[in-house]
Amino acid sequence: MNKINVSVIGASGYVGGELLRLLLKHPNVNLHQATSESNQGQFIKSVHPNLRQFSNKFVALKDLENCDVLFLCLPHGVGMDQINDLRPVAKIVIDLSGDFRLNNKNEYLTWYKLTHPNPNLLKSKVLGLPELHKEKIKKATLIACPGCMSTATILSLYPLLKAGVLQDTPIITEAKTGSSASGNKLSKASLHAERSGVMRSFAPTSHRHSAEISQELTINGKVPQINFSATSVEAVRGILATSHVFLKEGITEPDIWEIYRTFVKDKPFLRIVKEKKGNYRYPEPKLLIGTNVCEIGFEKDLHSDRLVVMSAIDNLMKGAAGQAVQCFNITQGFDENMGLETIGLYPI
Amino acid sequence: MNKINVSVIGASGYVGGELLRLLLKHPNVNLHQATSESNQGQFIKSVHPNLRQFSNKFVALKDLENCDVLFLCLPHGVGMDQINDLRPVAKIVIDLSGDFRLNNKNEYLTWYKLTHPNPNLLKSKVLGLPELHKEKIKKATLIACPGCMSTATILSLYPLLKAGVLQDTPIITEAKTGSSASGNKLSKASLHAERSGVMRSFAPTSHRHSAEISQELTINGKVPQINFSATSVEAVRGILATSHVFLKEGITEPDIWEIYRTFVKDKPFLRIVKEKKGNYRYPEPKLLIGTNVCEIGFEKDLHSDRLVVMSAIDNLMKGAAGQAVQCFNITQGFDENMGLETIGLYPI
Amino acid sequence: MNKINVSVIGASGYVGGELLRLLLKHPNVNLHQATSESNQGQFIKSVHPNLRQFSNKFVALKDLENCDVLFLCLPHGVGMDQINDLRPVAKIVIDLSGDFRLNNKNEYLTWYKLTHPNPNLLKSKVLGLPELHKEKIKKATLIACPGCMSTATILSLYPLLKAGVLQDTPIITEAKTGSSASGNKLSKASLHAERSGVMRSFAPTSHRHSAEISQELTINGKVPQINFSATSVEAVRGILATSHVFLKEGITEPDIWEIYRTFVKDKPFLRIVKEKKGNYRYPEPKLLIGTNVCEIGFEKDLHSDRLVVMSAIDNLMKGAAGQAVQCFNITQGFDENMGLETIGLYPI
Amino acid sequence: MNKINVSVIGASGYVGGELLRLLLKHPNVNLHQATSESNQGQFIKSVHPNLRQFSNKFVALKDLENCDVLFLCLPHGVGMDQINDLRPVAKIVIDLSGDFRLNNKNEYLTWYKLTHPNPNLLKSKVLGLPELHKEKIKKATLIACPGCMSTATILSLYPLLKAGVLQDTPIITEAKTGSSASGNKLSKASLHAERSGVMRSFAPTSHRHSAEISQELTINGKVPQINFSATSVEAVRGILATSHVFLKEGITEPDIWEIYRTFVKDKPFLRIVKEKKGNYRYPEPKLLIGTNVCEIGFEKDLHSDRLVVMSAIDNLMKGAAGQAVQCFNITQGFDENMGLETIGLYPI
Repeated sequence: MNKINVSVIGASGYVGGELLRLLLKHPNVNLHQATSESNQGQFIKSVHPNLRQFSNKFVALKDLENCDVLFLCLPHGVGMDQINDLRPVAKIVIDLSGDFRLNNKNEYLTWYKLTHPNPNLLKSKVLGLPELHKEKIKKATLIACPGCMSTATILSLYPLLKAGVLQDTPIITEAKTGSSASGNKLSKASLHAERSGVMRSFAPTSHRHSAEISQELTINGKVPQINFSATSVEAVRGILATSHVFLKEGITEPDIWEIYRTFVKDKPFLRIVKEKKGNYRYPEPKLLIGTNVCEIGFEKDLHSDRLVVMSAIDNLMKGAAGQAVQCFNITQGFDENMGLETIGLYPI
Repeated sequence: MNKINVSVIGASGYVGGELLRLLLKHPNVNLHQATSESNQGQFIKSVHPNLRQFSNKFVALKDLENCDVLFLCLPHGVGMDQINDLRPVAKIVIDLSGDFRLNNKNEYLTWYKLTHPNPNLLKSKVLGLPELHKEKIKKATLIACPGCMSTATILSLYPLLKAGVLQDTPIITEAKTGSSASGNKLSKASLHAERSGVMRSFAPTSHRHSAEISQELTINGKVPQINFSATSVEAVRGILATSHVFLKEGITEPDIWEIYRTFVKDKPFLRIVKEKKGNYRYPEPKLLIGTNVCEIGFEKDLHSDRLVVMSAIDNLMKGAAGQAVQCFNITQGFDENMGLETIGLYPI
Repeated sequence: MNKINVSVIGASGYVGGELLRLLLKHPNVNLHQATSESNQGQFIKSVHPNLRQFSNKFVALKDLENCDVLFLCLPHGVGMDQINDLRPVAKIVIDLSGDFRLNNKNEYLTWYKLTHPNPNLLKSKVLGLPELHKEKIKKATLIACPGCMSTATILSLYPLLKAGVLQDTPIITEAKTGSSASGNKLSKASLHAERSGVMRSFAPTSHRHSAEISQELTINGKVPQINFSATSVEAVRGILATSHVFLKEGITEPDIWEIYRTFVKDKPFLRIVKEKKGNYRYPEPKLLIGTNVCEIGFEKDLHSDRLVVMSAIDNLMKGAAGQAVQCFNITQGFDENMGLETIGLYPI
Repeated sequence: MNKINVSVIGASGYVGGELLRLLLKHPNVNLHQATSESNQGQFIKSVHPNLRQFSNKFVALKDLENCDVLFLCLPHGVGMDQINDLRPVAKIVIDLSGDFRLNNKNEYLTWYKLTHPNPNLLKSKVLGLPELHKEKIKKATLIACPGCMSTATILSLYPLLKAGVLQDTPIITEAKTGSSASGNKLSKASLHAERSGVMRSFAPTSHRHSAEISQELTINGKVPQINFSATSVEAVRGILATSHVFLKEGITEPDIWEIYRTFVKDKPFLRIVKEKKGNYRYPEPKLLIGTNVCEIGFEKDLHSDRLVVMSAIDNLMKGAAGQAVQCFNITQGFDENMGLETIGLYPI
């Protein structure tokens, strides 16, 4: 078959590099161009040392040529300005930034302190979360992939809210995250000696992902009370989102099992992890490094109505590049997991 | 002055070793004996390699002699049986296990699955949490120090509950902890290749420390709705307890500042950490390694009534051995921070 | 085509698990049986949590059936006793332990303190290091894969010794290694709190791999003066072997380039890494996690005749399971890298 | 007694911060001023978060006042220019950079690519390595403390060279180091996601510390053949220097014991670590974090004349700030270990 020509804009960051790794090995893809203003003309491998076996070079944005699918890995706030120049390049644009995730332009004012220059696109885009929007993704021309912590949180809470089994009380979610989620920009917070071994409350409240989570968990117009916190822990990759919700009277653990089993059915990247014994009874991000899997687990509190829900992903994979390729596969009618079949490593 | 003769029972574990380190350098202490059944006759430094400069040896419990103060570092469930033999040895016994922390014998059935053999002591003991029970500690003869995660949680939530500023809704606390809290027993869960880099939900619900927390946060008979979870993260030492509470209408951040400022006043090991900028705006356990400090911080959610409260300690210090020495100092009328003045390291 | 039926003996360790991961995804392999005495009847995924998607179970050794190729992942000293019972099971046996690596039974007395029960096999086996013995591996019926640190050291030093460019002085090799190389046996040395963050000289001299290295670097009967040391550092996977050799007069860096270029040519898993700038100028084990690649780099000392040679591998892959699969592929006439094409992750 | 007034120039780096920590707790010191151009007017604690309990502020260099002892923590190449302006400020100047360590100006051309502006000071300065130069330090007015890897290497090799027990062959030293040795300047190499988990050969040859090591190990005019390499490993603090030397015929392990025992005698910060069993048989940097101790160990190779010598320090303490305070104590006639008595932590 003819391979699909794809290009990647802003390919010198961590997400861009992860996307290149996947695309370069994707059986049905031809990587046409990868842009980087700061590294134009350089070998890709000079920036992404895991790609030593490839001899591709970065090009400048001005040299971008037409292709079939365009991936945007730009910093937040850049793509929303350039989008009208970029869309003519390809029939399908898949954006990995936050620039089109929210449906309502007012939310950009609230959470990003930005006036969105293309609010009409907020309505026409499709959120690139296949487990919720697969049918729309099939026909989408602008796909906005959700954030890493949002993905982990939404996928684990959506089935419960959809099933209507939760009390109408605040939901608390605390996400633990590794350092690669901050990207490769130089900052004192990201120095090894500073970031190493932390349990750092970098966003106890007001994290932008709150808005995406709230949006996607609004079901039949009912806005849940999401209270999100984010903590950095020692890891390069990985997110563990732990949510605390309260079950309506009479809802039992078997009910919850049933809800999740139904939800993960036929979704190749979702997996329930809930064991009675062993060290890995619940989702563990390190086992998912390099995979596109989202693991979901839960435990009912014997002493209260609380249900603790845990979900784990690799932030650069299911939280970014892997999810983008999953969306791409859906747009092309390919197997959803084409190029994404990696099994995690153990021990690691 | 004459030094106080102290002995340590069960001194070959991590808590025991940390206690020895403190006692061997304490200006007013003479370490009389340290017992270890498995290492009797061996140099202490053969087990605790940081104590190479000392030539003391472990003795067997059967060779225990009278002393002034006896510290118990036994595994849970052992001291509650041996206590009647041990108390005659010293006027003051300071227990670092869970064996006497709870006031109610029924709680031992619920949380430890044990029938407590000496329930009368549960009433007469004093909980070794000086910031709450200093006056009683001064005259106590049996002191039961609280658990590491309990200490961090109680110290940060007590002032709010005492002040009555919280809504009557469930409190969610999620504690992140390092590996030394599990002690030095061999277990597959504790192998480096297994434990390394985890974000492991080892007790999403039902952690025993829940009982201590609930007990100490019961104020004027009002039992709070504590929902506690514990997660292992990559670190050897350190605990960060993050609590999510909801403020009554009208309570402002300045009110919270005032409550905490009043609470930490004249308490040498408590410190409020809440900065507007920088990497260390909130409590960070790694900066407290080797210190007896508990740092407390908080952030009001702009989008809800939530207050996020964070507290950090070194689990082996303020969470165990340091707190025991603090209690010891109080019993002897010494400066509370004698032998505990270490400043944390940075970077680390 | 018909898939090759393979079985794995001793499949519950880290090497066994890694091998199962590779075999379960190998396009031309059918995993027939995996044995584990301690876990017989259990799901493989109960021991190797990364293999959750597979429903295979461990069987007991006594239930072992005939197959095409048998992999042995037994502890050192076990396979050398059982080998005569195991060989009839399959036409080809690939052993991953140290039991048949050395050619001379006296070496087993010296390095393993063992009298080898089947010394005749030491001559007939082929060492499973394809970059040196590919032709023999094609026809071998007993293959003994070399150790992880040996593999890294031999592959980087062999070309220099073969080319005869080194002075006749002692060679110093210092290998840094992660914790997975010690396996999953319980030991105090392997506890997270003990092993974490170490720079631990666990074998300054007398490491068993010295014997393999010396054996394989003996060229035309000339035994090199190998002085090997091993140091544990903070990592789960990865080995960096750094060797210090002295060049004969007149040998230049371009000569060395030429020697290595010739050596790595047509060897799919070898790669020279030597860059003028960047953070990854030389081999870096973490970039090779999960891959079967061995990276080799070198730097000539401007102030002496010294050449520093560096080589990096994943100890569980090119240092164990990956190399075994590579040997397997060769025995079957498959592409050498079938099932081993993974690209490393970055960042990680 | 009157306290000694000391000031620190360039106090916002990691070494400067560590020095402030020590000086602020030193019983005989009054910290007069701490300068930082980039942070002048700011609280010291805003840069060094472990010093939260102190309210001192940084001042600008132009506001420097006279004091008794001046510590310089400037980047390499700065102090050598400013030294003539700084010396009048205090009777004693202790420099922690590389600017005055080497005795010969030509060495600055070779290793630093700099023409030294004050070569006369290279002769009159005293190297701040008390174990070798204590008598001279007592009367010195300009003290240049050696580098961290130099300190570890020199202290472990000096006794052997002095005793004349080594063959006249090349000495190989490979130092493993944590990330804090690189300081807190922003660089991509120092980002957590890049630096985490590395075994990175950042200076296989040509490290500047080679020159200091060679200088200090030149005994009676005999220049040893030092071949130094440096490798970054996962740690924030700590250096392990492993040296490989060859013993003259007839030299036995008891001879080596005797040489080191004699050397460490009456040197409060040196300690021989060589155990027959246990996990900490040899020097382990992590146990020395926060201490000024240098541990030295050795192992004779049973298969050759090689002796492996290991030495461990905390790079910010015995490798920088601690050693500077030790020198300071000597200049003032104080106990050498005043303010430096910390015992290391375990586990850590």
